Amino acid sequence: MSDWEEYLSANQNRFIDELLAFTRIPSVSAKPENIPDVRAAADWVAARLSAAGAENARVYPTEGHPVVCADWLHAGADKPTLLVYGHFDVQPAEPFDLWTTPPFEPEIRDGKVWGRGASDDKGGMLIPILSFESFLKTRGKLPVNLKFFFEGQEEIGSPDLPPWVDANRGLLEADMIFSADGLQWAPGVPQIVEALKGLVSLEITVQGPRSDQHSGMVGGGIANPALALAHILAGLRREDGLITVEGFYDDVIALDDAARAALDRVPYPDDQLLSETGSPAPWGEPGYTTQERIFARPTLDVNGLTSGWQGAGTKTVLPALASAKITCRLVAAQSPEKIFDAIRAHVEKHCPPGVSAKVIRNPGRADPFLVPAGHNASSAAAEVLTELYGKAPLRTRVGGSIPVMTTLLDTLGVHAVMFGFSHGDENLHAPNEFFRLDEFRRGQTAYGRLFERLGK
Amino acid sequence: MSDWEEYLSANQNRFIDELLAFTRIPSVSAKPENIPDVRAAADWVAARLSAAGAENARVYPTEGHPVVCADWLHAGADKPTLLVYGHFDVQPAEPFDLWTTPPFEPEIRDGKVWGRGASDDKGGMLIPILSFESFLKTRGKLPVNLKFFFEGQEEIGSPDLPPWVDANRGLLEADMIFSADGLQWAPGVPQIVEALKGLVSLEITVQGPRSDQHSGMVGGGIANPALALAHILAGLRREDGLITVEGFYDDVIALDDAARAALDRVPYPDDQLLSETGSPAPWGEPGYTTQERIFARPTLDVNGLTSGWQGAGTKTVLPALASAKITCRLVAAQSPEKIFDAIRAHVEKHCPPGVSAKVIRNPGRADPFLVPAGHNASSAAAEVLTELYGKAPLRTRVGGSIPVMTTLLDTLGVHAVMFGFSHGDENLHAPNEFFRLDEFRRGQTAYGRLFERLGK
Repeated sequence: MSDWEEYLSANQNRFIDELLAFTRIPSVSAKPENIPDVRAAADWVAARLSAAGAENARVYPTEGHPVVCADWLHAGADKPTLLVYGHFDVQPAEPFDLWTTPPFEPEIRDGKVWGRGASDDKGGMLIPILSFESFLKTRGKLPVNLKFFFEGQEEIGSPDLPPWVDANRGLLEADMIFSADGLQWAPGVPQIVEALKGLVSLEITVQGPRSDQHSGMVGGGIANPALALAHILAGLRREDGLITVEGFYDDVIALDDAARAALDRVPYPDDQLLSETGSPAPWGEPGYTTQERIFARPTLDVNGLTSGWQGAGTKTVLPALASAKITCRLVAAQSPEKIFDAIRAHVEKHCPPGVSAKVIRNPGRADPFLVPAGHNASSAAAEVLTELYGKAPLRTRVGGSIPVMTTLLDTLGVHAVMFGFSHGDENLHAPNEFFRLDEFRRGQTAYGRLFERLGK
Repeated sequence: MSDWEEYLSANQNRFIDELLAFTRIPSVSAKPENIPDVRAAADWVAARLSAAGAENARVYPTEGHPVVCADWLHAGADKPTLLVYGHFDVQPAEPFDLWTTPPFEPEIRDGKVWGRGASDDKGGMLIPILSFESFLKTRGKLPVNLKFFFEGQEEIGSPDLPPWVDANRGLLEADMIFSADGLQWAPGVPQIVEALKGLVSLEITVQGPRSDQHSGMVGGGIANPALALAHILAGLRREDGLITVEGFYDDVIALDDAARAALDRVPYPDDQLLSETGSPAPWGEPGYTTQERIFARPTLDVNGLTSGWQGAGTKTVLPALASAKITCRLVAAQSPEKIFDAIRAHVEKHCPPGVSAKVIRNPGRADPFLVPAGHNASSAAAEVLTELYGKAPLRTRVGGSIPVMTTLLDTLGVHAVMFGFSHGDENLHAPNEFFRLDEFRRGQTAYGRLFERLGK
């Protein structure tokens, strides 16, 4: 065991105490009454970075919750500069009464720290600070140049982050970015996330008569917008899952055999999907497996329907309006704007008779994110994971979007690598959140080995 | 002018005062605080019937608002017995501030009585009482036997009427029924309503996952119930209006040439339909005119859609449930039960993959109503209208249902004839309801002539 690893082991009890102290701060970004707590968490992080030996540790204001940055840039100009990202805000903890122990009074049971934020992302973001400290305290230096970038609004969608990143890109520029806000596939099963989906959100509104009509007075003589909307939606995607919007798949980078093989190795059996969701059968785009559909093929989902009478019983109304909210999850190299235009053009072209249809954008967009083949940072991360877990990581993709990954790519031109040690079963946004202490420890070694490997 | 007609003219000012007094009673059946007022209106009606010379005038309790009956059965066994129906309850008058004069302080302007219920149906139901009185007071007798049957819950759908009618059929039995709750086509243009549509109400609920899911986590791999619902609805009715439910049209009595010609004489130009509704184009079952579609062909309308997120903006949810409320307006000889079964079978047969669909009945049913050709009471009514308006009445049908007409047919076996003198432009369920005094007067003669004609 190397000196810095021994330092980690020797100081583990202190680190755990620090994680407990950090978790005690109720830094809930969604609740106005916790604004001072989010700020207190920022101060705690800045102080901890300084204590570890980082320089320029500072809390920066944004339009909302603050950001904390720090750096250590003395490895030499021939060494790469890494940026490590994480967040110190947490989800609301309600309902409190479902917690075995209070969410902001963390305690250790069964080798786990139980408390709100222990896993997402306080444990996660503390890890690289501790790895950094272990080098500084044992060797006085790090094999790479390092920047820390932690935010306090991830759990509310980082609304003020993109302009701040844009205005402070000099502070953040790096050769590689690692996100300490991430998961491994399962305990003992590492993963490298190679892609995230993009997003476009829109709403279709169909209008028939100018106001609701009596279905007995004019029904049968004028078109029903709810029926017309059904025809429009049915025309966007077949009942077997194929999306029929003209041009929808044009820019999709096809999955090659290697990509399909990697996805199909991800252990996500249909039985698990069905038992987790309660759906009666797997479903989706013909010609693809469940993993391919969810992780790597674009989707079109109706998120909501609204028309006419929604109360109990019967109202014999022929409604004036019917609307559907839709989001599409996109894959490289689809563009949210092009997909929106394609859907709007499709709806306009296929609008049923007797009604008018309007398509508008709703808030929310993300470009799809696909790590280029042979990406250095990903390869290094994969090698470290292989070493530590004794097996090669799964090469996974995520069906959702992570806006900060897109923001960093767009602004800094760097594909961030998710390198975190939480797990999906740790009740991340639910009562009784916990973080595994063995992964806390393993993560510290992982970041240290990453520094060593990249500093060679 | 005959003696009874002279009596009507001589007493017209008194009759108008009585209509004003009747209209002052705020007998709003929908509002619990007006229960005593509905009862007061019932008492007023019973007293007025007695004053006119009717016998056995009584207020009868039901499970809800009361009923008033009276009779005069001394014309002789060789004369027919007529039952006259109407209602003394009224619609709520809100919003009060849109009324030029207060709804329950009726006044006369421009030859019209303005007030809630003046047209629907207090003016209408008072008419046959006055015609009856004119015979009794001038001749001491009526040419026919007559029963009066007035209710106090028409505006809330007569929920307690069917069991009461069933339990009191002896009191109501008659050779012919006339409803004093009815309209003429337009001022100066009489009509005989030959048919009313039936109704069946149902709800389709589609379930995908057991609870709402994150569209990024499982979207593309499990079916979306809102999309599946769209496919189901699109499969019930083509976008051009043809209903594609298997068996839907099986029991429809086809319109023969004479029926189509009569309907097409009804002046209801597409321009009027579009300007009244604001719909962009006429629409409906191919091969039929607008009048045929609205008045005489069955319909299937979506009354409401509910699924997932309906608030502002975006929620990336894959909903668990999606539902649609549907009503079908039926024509003779369709059965609400058979149509429900047909739709349920159709939905079960064509349910898209990956979801389950359930079809349930909602409250509200009515059999379609079609007056048989050569119906005596209709012919007599048509002859009276021809005499009084100087032109033959339009032979119309109504796209809506009037449950009491069905109730009377089902229980007493008699097709009621609508014989009322209100007009569709009189703001019947809106602020500033009014009733035309010239039609009030004409109606009184019309009922008198009807009595004479049927007593010959």
